[in-house]
Amino acid sequence: MLNLQDTITSKLEAVDGKSKFKEDLWERPEGGGGRTRVIENGHVFEKGGVNISAVHGKLPESMQQYFGVKDADFYACGLSLVLHPKNPMVPTVHANWRYFEMYDQDGTMVDSWFGGGQDLTPYYLFDEDAIHFHQICKTACDKHQPKFYELYKKKCDEYFWNAHRHEARGVGGLFFDYCKANDDMTMDDWYNFVTEVGNSFLEGYIPIVEKRKDLSYSDEQRKWQEIRRGRYVEFNLVHDKGTLFGLKTNGRIESILMSLPPHVQWIYDYHPQKNSEEEKLIRVLKNPIDWIEF
Amino acid sequence: MLNLQDTITSKLEAVDGKSKFKEDLWERPEGGGGRTRVIENGHVFEKGGVNISAVHGKLPESMQQYFGVKDADFYACGLSLVLHPKNPMVPTVHANWRYFEMYDQDGTMVDSWFGGGQDLTPYYLFDEDAIHFHQICKTACDKHQPKFYELYKKKCDEYFWNAHRHEARGVGGLFFDYCKANDDMTMDDWYNFVTEVGNSFLEGYIPIVEKRKDLSYSDEQRKWQEIRRGRYVEFNLVHDKGTLFGLKTNGRIESILMSLPPHVQWIYDYHPQKNSEEEKLIRVLKNPIDWIEF
Repeated sequence: MLNLQDTITSKLEAVDGKSKFKEDLWERPEGGGGRTRVIENGHVFEKGGVNISAVHGKLPESMQQYFGVKDADFYACGLSLVLHPKNPMVPTVHANWRYFEMYDQDGTMVDSWFGGGQDLTPYYLFDEDAIHFHQICKTACDKHQPKFYELYKKKCDEYFWNAHRHEARGVGGLFFDYCKANDDMTMDDWYNFVTEVGNSFLEGYIPIVEKRKDLSYSDEQRKWQEIRRGRYVEFNLVHDKGTLFGLKTNGRIESILMSLPPHVQWIYDYHPQKNSEEEKLIRVLKNPIDWIEF
Repeated sequence: MLNLQDTITSKLEAVDGKSKFKEDLWERPEGGGGRTRVIENGHVFEKGGVNISAVHGKLPESMQQYFGVKDADFYACGLSLVLHPKNPMVPTVHANWRYFEMYDQDGTMVDSWFGGGQDLTPYYLFDEDAIHFHQICKTACDKHQPKFYELYKKKCDEYFWNAHRHEARGVGGLFFDYCKANDDMTMDDWYNFVTEVGNSFLEGYIPIVEKRKDLSYSDEQRKWQEIRRGRYVEFNLVHDKGTLFGLKTNGRIESILMSLPPHVQWIYDYHPQKNSEEEKLIRVLKNPIDWIEF
């Protein structure tokens, strides 16, 4: 996790060419801590964070209810990233890879699982970018289980659904959770799978950034990006379980809310013009597409 | 309610001097509807809505859980307003006055109550403005019950608490809910009280707008306003019960989310300068003040 954070932030700084990540080390009073790295006002990245954390202690009450357990201890670690590019032609990307352990009061581990995924949120839709991103996801999955890509692609479409808008947050990718030892996969197998997916992230995203970052754009296209970023905020604050857990369990607020975009607009009852590029995006978000064959 | 909406939107248009409210009539498929009025890009008001609605039908499942009832019918009506001024020296204001009825399956009314309140969210704090707003609230309350102002002022500070930021949304005002017939107040008394509070709104807010709307401000002060508007979004999407109910019960999204500010910023780990006006505001938000004597 430490290495992957280094690899990803180094590459992003190289692509950006102007801004560097600012690092904050933090400790959680109840146990553990993290290394938050945030980039702002870059040539390419207007705002973004690539954060790792490893926390442990008593399972907070709100999470006890959620998991249906009492008085457990937990250990959780993960890497979370969100990148908001300046140019509306470059999609926002989110990724998270995590591991969770639960302990009973004797200190015996009673449960453990992996989770994670990555998903792409374009403002202007280039089909080939969505296909490329999904192809990299599929290649990583296929090395482990032939069914994983189809399964986790669909879970991603379900999870990143902005229910109150009846539309997806973006064009999806992968989402998996509660990945536990079973007949097909040991915990080591799951570790290798999640590692493979994490290591494929740059290959999925960077070529898209390189291809789109120097495209020209108008003030109107920038406005559209800021309006769509509002939908991103709505998803993260209303629906995203990770964000809400963090906010309700006294997590480090600034590390959690680094996911929110830098400049955002809300306009009353805004609708894109008929047959515009903006409307094409909405059509796809309302009816998620299978970008590649399963 | 219809008259109060007219009175308020007429006055706001007169104060703005440029933009007019745009009206949308809407129907709720399950019963009832509303009249949404939104103003945008005014001289004074960058964005705002003054909405009324009266809806009825089967109580949605999520609200059944909340109220601890099964298979009830309901009727709810109310006026909701939020105004986001352009000038950061003018505070944002929110108000809501509402009435709710619950029916059993025989069509007998089994419960009914009033609720509402109004609260002020400054970006730069002028003590005299907060005092004026609270004084008008108190005067309206005192005509009905001497204890109401103290009680509902405190409830307001509790309700509009942005728990994950450990700060209030603004400098408060009034908040009351589940106002039912009791030894002191009949339902008619409550109706008169809520009407009094609603009718006092313009007297509480407009003098503040008139006093501050032509003050000059810098780009830095505007930036501060946009950052603070981010906290407003966080409260409304994470904590506000009314907003979440609306979003989860298939309410009219654009009428509900008219409350979100037009231009918003999120900057990582932003802190105002020591002993600045911005820091003074934060100090007060973290420790709500009794603006006037009870």
